[in-house]
Amino acid sequence: MATSREYRLKSRPAGMPSADNFELATVNLPEPGPGEVQVRNLWLSVDPYMRGRMNDEPSYLPPWQIGKVLDGGALGEVTVSNADGLRPGDLVNSFYGWREGFTAPAATVQKLDPKGLPPQTFLSAAGGTGLTAYAGLLEVARLKDGDVVFVSGAAGAVGSMACQIAKAKGHTVIGSAGGPEKVAFLKEIGVDHAVDYKAEPDLTAAVRRAAPDGIDVYFDNVGGDHLDAALAAARTGARFAICGMISAYNEAQPAAGPRNLRMMMGKAIEMKGFLVTHYLGLQPAFLADFIRWHAEGKLRWRETVVQGIERTPEAFLGLFRGDNTGKMLVKLN
Amino acid sequence: MATSREYRLKSRPAGMPSADNFELATVNLPEPGPGEVQVRNLWLSVDPYMRGRMNDEPSYLPPWQIGKVLDGGALGEVTVSNADGLRPGDLVNSFYGWREGFTAPAATVQKLDPKGLPPQTFLSAAGGTGLTAYAGLLEVARLKDGDVVFVSGAAGAVGSMACQIAKAKGHTVIGSAGGPEKVAFLKEIGVDHAVDYKAEPDLTAAVRRAAPDGIDVYFDNVGGDHLDAALAAARTGARFAICGMISAYNEAQPAAGPRNLRMMMGKAIEMKGFLVTHYLGLQPAFLADFIRWHAEGKLRWRETVVQGIERTPEAFLGLFRGDNTGKMLVKLN
Repeated sequence: MATSREYRLKSRPAGMPSADNFELATVNLPEPGPGEVQVRNLWLSVDPYMRGRMNDEPSYLPPWQIGKVLDGGALGEVTVSNADGLRPGDLVNSFYGWREGFTAPAATVQKLDPKGLPPQTFLSAAGGTGLTAYAGLLEVARLKDGDVVFVSGAAGAVGSMACQIAKAKGHTVIGSAGGPEKVAFLKEIGVDHAVDYKAEPDLTAAVRRAAPDGIDVYFDNVGGDHLDAALAAARTGARFAICGMISAYNEAQPAAGPRNLRMMMGKAIEMKGFLVTHYLGLQPAFLADFIRWHAEGKLRWRETVVQGIERTPEAFLGLFRGDNTGKMLVKLN
Repeated sequence: MATSREYRLKSRPAGMPSADNFELATVNLPEPGPGEVQVRNLWLSVDPYMRGRMNDEPSYLPPWQIGKVLDGGALGEVTVSNADGLRPGDLVNSFYGWREGFTAPAATVQKLDPKGLPPQTFLSAAGGTGLTAYAGLLEVARLKDGDVVFVSGAAGAVGSMACQIAKAKGHTVIGSAGGPEKVAFLKEIGVDHAVDYKAEPDLTAAVRRAAPDGIDVYFDNVGGDHLDAALAAARTGARFAICGMISAYNEAQPAAGPRNLRMMMGKAIEMKGFLVTHYLGLQPAFLADFIRWHAEGKLRWRETVVQGIERTPEAFLGLFRGDNTGKMLVKLN
């Protein structure tokens, strides 16, 4: 491979991003130097958190820069290697996403043993997506026997894994998602009470009907009205793992927060924001549980696959329209 | 004492309460039966949390009932005793507030040893007020060496104790309060950076100036804009003890929450609501520290005293206008 097409940031959005914020460019890939590899990407990950990187503000990852190539999760195949331990044909995980290929030091990619799973699973259910759900439930929310669990964005990549991990551990699970198709998927993965928030005039009432004695754990992917409903339905001592607030990411002016926040005091509610990057040490334990639960038929996941590097921005923008069920991935040719 | 005047709930407010929501009545006090005492109250406590009890909604304490006597913290003197261990003249703490006197089982009052302090201190700095600050900082926010602490409502009863406990433990403290008089009090009690939120056009900028490297602990008495500023100024891993949200208590429609809540994820912020009633086991440790810090000259407190049972509603309503510096108390004749 001599050239690679890659996406660059053309402009920063105010509010909802559009395809105009991205531009495709072609670059020549250098020959790998000593200790370097050249990789052809097979799969790219697009994720809601990337919206934050389009803003020019400090955060846990640096902002994307105008005119520069974007980055993100990617899965590829080594084509040329000048490094010990990696050979052509080896699969590697990397953060060199939004591009067809790259040349880089071998130390910046991770060799992947797919353990009999389709390799892109390691960008979705068995990768950071599943680990996020696992860490949020077990470490952040400190899930314990008998807890009733509410998951928002439950048909999404992280949400559907959170629902199934909670079910695999024997919990009653309430999941919310938008539309009949997603609700059908929630039932398919064993969610006890599937709430279609688009069809519910009163989300709080719907959660209360599903959990008449209240919820103990809330796994938040949405924020906004969903967080309000969780506060209203929470039992004393409830623990909220705040994983995402997709409802707020594209507001030019940040939207107002939940009106019910004062319930935190009377109910002694704990809310804890987290990033999966703080819990990477859990990966071996997660993968062991994942393999076991998968073998027991307790895990299902979906991928929404968009084909072709040219459609990467479209896949990304679709996340904010709810186009995906499960993890949104881009498959390269 | 044969009769007692007492306040009853006349009507429930929508939004800000008024004197019309209360009515004064006179009752005859029964003679104490076996195991009972009769008590003349000397001091009554009025507190922001009582606003919640005016609403007809379930909470950690039952709602006050229309036509029934109100309750709350009180300090009194035994006048008649039919119980072992209590004699006329003994001081007692009880929850029989909003009234001049009462007859009750001795087991429902607590004999008080004032340890050389003015007895009403046990309704304020040395009582639940100080314990709330102590528990919020040490247990809820898990204060640790080097933490920079931000306290809102810092000139209030709980807030001023939180500031001084943090200072006694060697921390840098930023306190916010409204108006020059309260700010002067904050300086008097040793707060490092006193912010007058009424004079600041941008509270977030003011907190950031006071804590250029960010805050580690936020003790929230206010909610709303103050919580927004704390989220913006928080360092990674910051812990928020959510003690009160006085800014939200009198909204007929609950006010919208903080716009910055999504910062919880990137900064891995923990917010925990709490009630002092879950931490009563800390009282002996708190009192020992209190006596020591007081002897070392590290604690000051103010009381705003309103004289006469008739003015109890006025004292209570004054809490929401910020009339008090330190604990608001009603002194009976």
